[in-house]
Amino acid sequence: MLKLVGFDADDTLWHSEGFFRTVHDEFERILGKYLDLSNANVHDGLLEVERRNIKLFGYGAKGMTLSMLETAIALTQEKISAKHLHDIINLGKEVLMHPVQLIDGIEKAVAEVAKDYQIVLITKGDLFHQESKVAKSGLSELFGRIEIVSEKDPSTYQRVLSEFGLSAQQFLMVGNSLRSDIAPVIKIGGYAVHIPYPITWALEMDDTFVADDNKMCSVESAAQIPAAVQQLALKAARLH
Amino acid sequence: MLKLVGFDADDTLWHSEGFFRTVHDEFERILGKYLDLSNANVHDGLLEVERRNIKLFGYGAKGMTLSMLETAIALTQEKISAKHLHDIINLGKEVLMHPVQLIDGIEKAVAEVAKDYQIVLITKGDLFHQESKVAKSGLSELFGRIEIVSEKDPSTYQRVLSEFGLSAQQFLMVGNSLRSDIAPVIKIGGYAVHIPYPITWALEMDDTFVADDNKMCSVESAAQIPAAVQQLALKAARLH
Repeated sequence: MLKLVGFDADDTLWHSEGFFRTVHDEFERILGKYLDLSNANVHDGLLEVERRNIKLFGYGAKGMTLSMLETAIALTQEKISAKHLHDIINLGKEVLMHPVQLIDGIEKAVAEVAKDYQIVLITKGDLFHQESKVAKSGLSELFGRIEIVSEKDPSTYQRVLSEFGLSAQQFLMVGNSLRSDIAPVIKIGGYAVHIPYPITWALEMDDTFVADDNKMCSVESAAQIPAAVQQLALKAARLH
Repeated sequence: MLKLVGFDADDTLWHSEGFFRTVHDEFERILGKYLDLSNANVHDGLLEVERRNIKLFGYGAKGMTLSMLETAIALTQEKISAKHLHDIINLGKEVLMHPVQLIDGIEKAVAEVAKDYQIVLITKGDLFHQESKVAKSGLSELFGRIEIVSEKDPSTYQRVLSEFGLSAQQFLMVGNSLRSDIAPVIKIGGYAVHIPYPITWALEMDDTFVADDNKMCSVESAAQIPAAVQQLALKAARLH
């Protein structure tokens, strides 16, 4: 029997990646004062630095800002001015301050799922930033519990479930990232509803995941989430 | 009856503030290339920027690094070179990578308390950094549960206790910070053992706190923690 439904936050409950993209464009514009952008690949340079730093910084806007600064210093061969580096710090602050814009229909969908199941928000990234977004979203009343984790892998989901005293077969996760929200939950024996977001950060890509129709399904809009959850709950009830 | 004992992490289980102080000294040395340090107060400048940024960044080494960069740019009137700003980023990385050095006798003290009570680690700061320190400390086996919070105020402690299904009268907190570990726990009706650390960050100072001998006590070394917990547990048993 399904008992607990987890929801991802960024790009599942509210828009996020778009703000990062806007900041990346602005970052490129600043570096364009020093580099010939037709030759230099700012995007790949940043991604390489982020990949290297993620083990030290974890996810989130503060780590991204530090990685942007490192990338800018390296790509300009230390020629970038303190003023422009300050502009880059301010780009990071803009990400931290951006308003929370809910995904269309998500509030109603979460409320409907919450009628039948206990729900929990499971998100990674900066603790402080995620808490402030939850507070601004107006959804904190619906979510009795918020789990902010540093990595969404099978062992993290196992730990969260053990805190609830539940097995993976009693758990379903809703999210936009195959790599973080879907694959690890399916791997431990849980259920998942995938709601793709139009854009995905390169470090969230997962090309290796193979769908399991008995355990997961994809929806195109938030309004379809409650029915998808019910459908998988019926399959779960028949299986166990 | 006392049921749960919480432990703070930085400067309670392991040394932390000393690494920050070393980094601050190095930061001042870098700025000394641009400023007359007998006139400029780098320390106060940084503290002012940190105080302003804490609402956006929260606690932790990444936010401190961004605040050091902002301070350096402001105090040098944008004259500081990209190379020196990169040196400052690397100072922040050193804090994130520093080895975990346990406080003398703390491992034994925690193990002794854990024989009689459920224990939990309650710490604030960067989620990623704190998790990595817990892993490196060798204490994660003792702590069945780790709560990383963004602010240690009365409502945070209330939330943690409600997740355990306990009242404040069943809870005791051990920590070095009057402001974060002791005062908010006493305020909600819990118990506390204060173990002062030789140095305290300015933003952790609390000059307003008045001790309540029935609810708290101070110890001078980790070895004294288990007896202090027992003593307060007896008072708690008599009171309720």
